[in-house]
Amino acid sequence: MLPFARVGIIGMGLIGASLARAVRARLPTVRLTVHDADAGVRERVRALDLADDVTDTAAACVIDADLVILCVPVRAMGAAAAEIADDLSAGCVVSDVGSVKASVLADLTAALPPSVHIVPAHPVAGTEKSGPDAGFATLFDGRWCILTPGPDADATAVARVTEFWTRLGANVETMDPAHHDLVLAVTSHLPHLIAYTIVGTASDLESVTRSEVIKYSAGGFRDFTRIAASDPTMWRDVFLSNKDAVLDVLQRFSEDLSALQRAIRWGDGDYLHALFTRTRAVRRTIIDAGQDTAADDFGRPHA
Amino acid sequence: MLPFARVGIIGMGLIGASLARAVRARLPTVRLTVHDADAGVRERVRALDLADDVTDTAAACVIDADLVILCVPVRAMGAAAAEIADDLSAGCVVSDVGSVKASVLADLTAALPPSVHIVPAHPVAGTEKSGPDAGFATLFDGRWCILTPGPDADATAVARVTEFWTRLGANVETMDPAHHDLVLAVTSHLPHLIAYTIVGTASDLESVTRSEVIKYSAGGFRDFTRIAASDPTMWRDVFLSNKDAVLDVLQRFSEDLSALQRAIRWGDGDYLHALFTRTRAVRRTIIDAGQDTAADDFGRPHA
Repeated sequence: MLPFARVGIIGMGLIGASLARAVRARLPTVRLTVHDADAGVRERVRALDLADDVTDTAAACVIDADLVILCVPVRAMGAAAAEIADDLSAGCVVSDVGSVKASVLADLTAALPPSVHIVPAHPVAGTEKSGPDAGFATLFDGRWCILTPGPDADATAVARVTEFWTRLGANVETMDPAHHDLVLAVTSHLPHLIAYTIVGTASDLESVTRSEVIKYSAGGFRDFTRIAASDPTMWRDVFLSNKDAVLDVLQRFSEDLSALQRAIRWGDGDYLHALFTRTRAVRRTIIDAGQDTAADDFGRPHA
Repeated sequence: MLPFARVGIIGMGLIGASLARAVRARLPTVRLTVHDADAGVRERVRALDLADDVTDTAAACVIDADLVILCVPVRAMGAAAAEIADDLSAGCVVSDVGSVKASVLADLTAALPPSVHIVPAHPVAGTEKSGPDAGFATLFDGRWCILTPGPDADATAVARVTEFWTRLGANVETMDPAHHDLVLAVTSHLPHLIAYTIVGTASDLESVTRSEVIKYSAGGFRDFTRIAASDPTMWRDVFLSNKDAVLDVLQRFSEDLSALQRAIRWGDGDYLHALFTRTRAVRRTIIDAGQDTAADDFGRPHA
């Protein structure tokens, strides 16, 4: 049973383009229509042949669709929804891929007619690259996709979106939007915040040159730069839309950092060793859960 | 011209074992003798056939050697040097691979006789794994090795150590020990400190379960766990031995983090976007400099 027959995707960045490729690869009988607000991106998507039709307007993209997925930055969701509101078929399912869910659920609910079913989603997957060329069909394989329907959401619509993401290779979980935002503040938003900060700090020092930072980055710094190379607009929106949860976990992080700072200042080697032993074990758990590769050094080539 | 004919390595962890393999592969005529304080490690090194001889004592390892390399945790360097002091040949070059250099130069100078040449070194390379099985011959390929000889060091000894590391595939740079410690505080020690902290913070939350942290780690958190899986003893010693520089750059980081925190709290999207755009450019520079792979997502397999 095909969960949806006519899918529209708005926004052809890394995630939208990966989604289009995954639909093509895994659900080849789906009629796929896509749109991007940027004419250059649309041209590129046509050249890459990522969809059956690339429309010049968002409204044209959603006509007759039974599933529409908004793949735009979190704070652009409301406007994108408003742009298609009048052209959605009754009973159409509208979803998204945003990294923040409470604000998106509120924005979609405000912008869309009651005749459509809203099922927000967040595939926890991505890379540091942006744009349609960066997308690939296997991005969601084995990753988790979190659905955050509101309390009155249509159960059949939720089941169909679950089936859709399962077909694309993802594991699907349903979660309360506020809890989603707290969990992701820890596993994704705080790590990005820290990575952006440390890369900024290292670039601004007067006593160490930029060239030295680059040359000796293999000592650990370079791993942070991958995350700090993520899309600026997407991440600006994430932090502004999930402000409370991000500031909460940041407070916890700062307290823990102060404790570590104090241990270093006072030479408390036992404190350091105990923490470092505990954190080492966490990685093994992530590898056992299939959420990262066991190859050491991320399997970086050394030859 | 072979820079050294008889090399002794003390300590067969990740770096010592990689060094032994690299010597075997790139300088096959060198007579290589190794030692580890742990009998189980010695047995493993014999089984892996990493050297011509595996000695049961450190003293036996250095007899007749013209180069001895200490590959033990930074705060164990002094004791390791004292253990071999009486058995070193006059004119022997003693080096190390520690991540902190001012304290190691001081410790080696205090422990060793004036008849040997001290040329401290730091190959900026490694993985999150430990022990002799984790070592591999190509670890130093294209990475930088920083030499930090004292002001009165023998120029010929420095040139020979430079040639040695060059033959093993590394780029060699000479630097003042104190400046080395500041540069590495930024490019290596601070990133490790931050990674250890965030992995600890995430593990301790009551509102988000450990299982949730693991499941959704692909959102960014998992990259930090690789660094936070590094050897606890090695890193305890690094922080305690490079306390001043680490606390200095940590102070800068904390200030920058507070500025970002404030921008989020006050909704200053332009500040965020400007920083995130700037940090994105840093990664490109690191890839251009050959210090990381250009494959997105570290080339993690997605199939």
